[in-house]
Amino acid sequence: MIDRLIDRIIELQNPTCVGLDTDFSYIPEGIRDGIDTMEEAAEAMIEFNMNIIDKISDVVPAVKVQVAYYEMYGVPGMRAFDYTLNYARGRGLFVIADCKRNDIGSTAACYSRAYIGDTKITSDCVYNAYNADAVTINAYLGTDGVQPFVDDMKAHDKGGFVLVKTSNPSSSEIQNLKLATGEYMYERMGKLVEGWGKDMVGKYGYSELGAVVGATFPEEAEKLRKELRNTFFLIPGYGAQGASAEMLRCCFDEKGLGGIVNNSRGILCAYKNTEYLGMTYSEAARAACLDMQQDLLNVIGKIG
Amino acid sequence: MIDRLIDRIIELQNPTCVGLDTDFSYIPEGIRDGIDTMEEAAEAMIEFNMNIIDKISDVVPAVKVQVAYYEMYGVPGMRAFDYTLNYARGRGLFVIADCKRNDIGSTAACYSRAYIGDTKITSDCVYNAYNADAVTINAYLGTDGVQPFVDDMKAHDKGGFVLVKTSNPSSSEIQNLKLATGEYMYERMGKLVEGWGKDMVGKYGYSELGAVVGATFPEEAEKLRKELRNTFFLIPGYGAQGASAEMLRCCFDEKGLGGIVNNSRGILCAYKNTEYLGMTYSEAARAACLDMQQDLLNVIGKIG
Repeated sequence: MIDRLIDRIIELQNPTCVGLDTDFSYIPEGIRDGIDTMEEAAEAMIEFNMNIIDKISDVVPAVKVQVAYYEMYGVPGMRAFDYTLNYARGRGLFVIADCKRNDIGSTAACYSRAYIGDTKITSDCVYNAYNADAVTINAYLGTDGVQPFVDDMKAHDKGGFVLVKTSNPSSSEIQNLKLATGEYMYERMGKLVEGWGKDMVGKYGYSELGAVVGATFPEEAEKLRKELRNTFFLIPGYGAQGASAEMLRCCFDEKGLGGIVNNSRGILCAYKNTEYLGMTYSEAARAACLDMQQDLLNVIGKIG
Repeated sequence: MIDRLIDRIIELQNPTCVGLDTDFSYIPEGIRDGIDTMEEAAEAMIEFNMNIIDKISDVVPAVKVQVAYYEMYGVPGMRAFDYTLNYARGRGLFVIADCKRNDIGSTAACYSRAYIGDTKITSDCVYNAYNADAVTINAYLGTDGVQPFVDDMKAHDKGGFVLVKTSNPSSSEIQNLKLATGEYMYERMGKLVEGWGKDMVGKYGYSELGAVVGATFPEEAEKLRKELRNTFFLIPGYGAQGASAEMLRCCFDEKGLGGIVNNSRGILCAYKNTEYLGMTYSEAARAACLDMQQDLLNVIGKIG
């Protein structure tokens, strides 16, 4: 997965991932009018996502679909999640299922089947529940909870990103605890990730198993970039969460590789921004993607 | 939530939670015969769960439904999850949605709405996606990712359990890291949990926000019981995962309160056990619940 993703980032000269965290309030009022059931809300999310995807699929390499925004609409919400993943994949986008799943080994295997593996009913009847290209993982349970995902990455040419240093204000409460060894918790987690992915390193030197590293903490990101030579970063925190392109420069190597930067609200809600006045929401999303590309390239330079 | 749960544990004299981790292979072959689609598999899971629930609802206080086993069957699987939760609640059981969700604040709020809160479409149209009584949470992201759940617990009389020391073999890789302060990671997590729940303590002295503490690590469990006076434990690891009643005695206080012990495979697959030969799967499940009750009471003593 990782080599194809990086190929596409280089081809488009754009390390941007659009977060389809489609909060119902992000959908323009005209489309929301008259909607009052979960089924209708889910249908509106699909329509909104399809229009966004159609306008961005030739300028960005990937989308990250945050499953929480779909789960809150129950079963119809999961149908919208499924539809969105399929539609994005059909338009040639890499699809990251942002679900931060975690559990003991036997249960983690179920999650892995759901998102990047397959579900076997009989030896002849094997299905893909969601068939994402990559999945996000919380590794508080250690190796047992990560190994099933790693096995599916190898078997199905998929990828994953483990939470190492998250972008939210309170991430330091656990992740920046200092260990008796002198390391910080996030560094130890990073080393575990690099270890879990060590035999899945692709042609660009990056492993199928990456790390989530928030752009909102540049000091930690810089340290992690130096320590984790083979770990590709999924970088949240740009835009609405407060991080600038300058703050995430340190996540990239000398070739401009090493990470992909997520932006959700900044793209989906671009139409609310006076900068894109007069555009439809999907045109504004495209314009915001191109502006973000320029903003990132200004600090990263040519990629590849 | 917690007071009602403890009331019921005392009433039934049974601190057992049945884990409806309904792996398709747990369903007897006769019922599985001829099934080859996700929809049919999900229907079989519902039938199996309903029969189990009917036979156990007067002897155990709670079920824990592990969402991973349903997610792997895609959208039909989530329908089975939803149906199972509703059915169990209708039979008077407390329902714990075991989903170990976690994310940054705005996204954690979506998860919380899905499982224990409500989803507002308009001011007049508010729905409960899954409406569990309690939810499991992974707190690697710190306070931001837990607070939305705590808010919904208060607003909707619900509960939660944060992963503190999990039952799986590799849980020590992160959770038993020694901090510079001399504490272990799991102790620090436990103290955070006790703090998050401190203004939600009920009449028995236990908070709405509990902790997941694996019975497979009695030394850690004993320490946590002493340190976390107001934290109720959800205790996995009994039975198939290797922990005996003796090993989890330390999780309970002098009144026999303080925890609920989960058992999944040991109940759902009891019919495969020679001990319960000749019984149907649901009869065997009931018999296994009663045997587990006896086994626990032998070491805990009278409850309440």
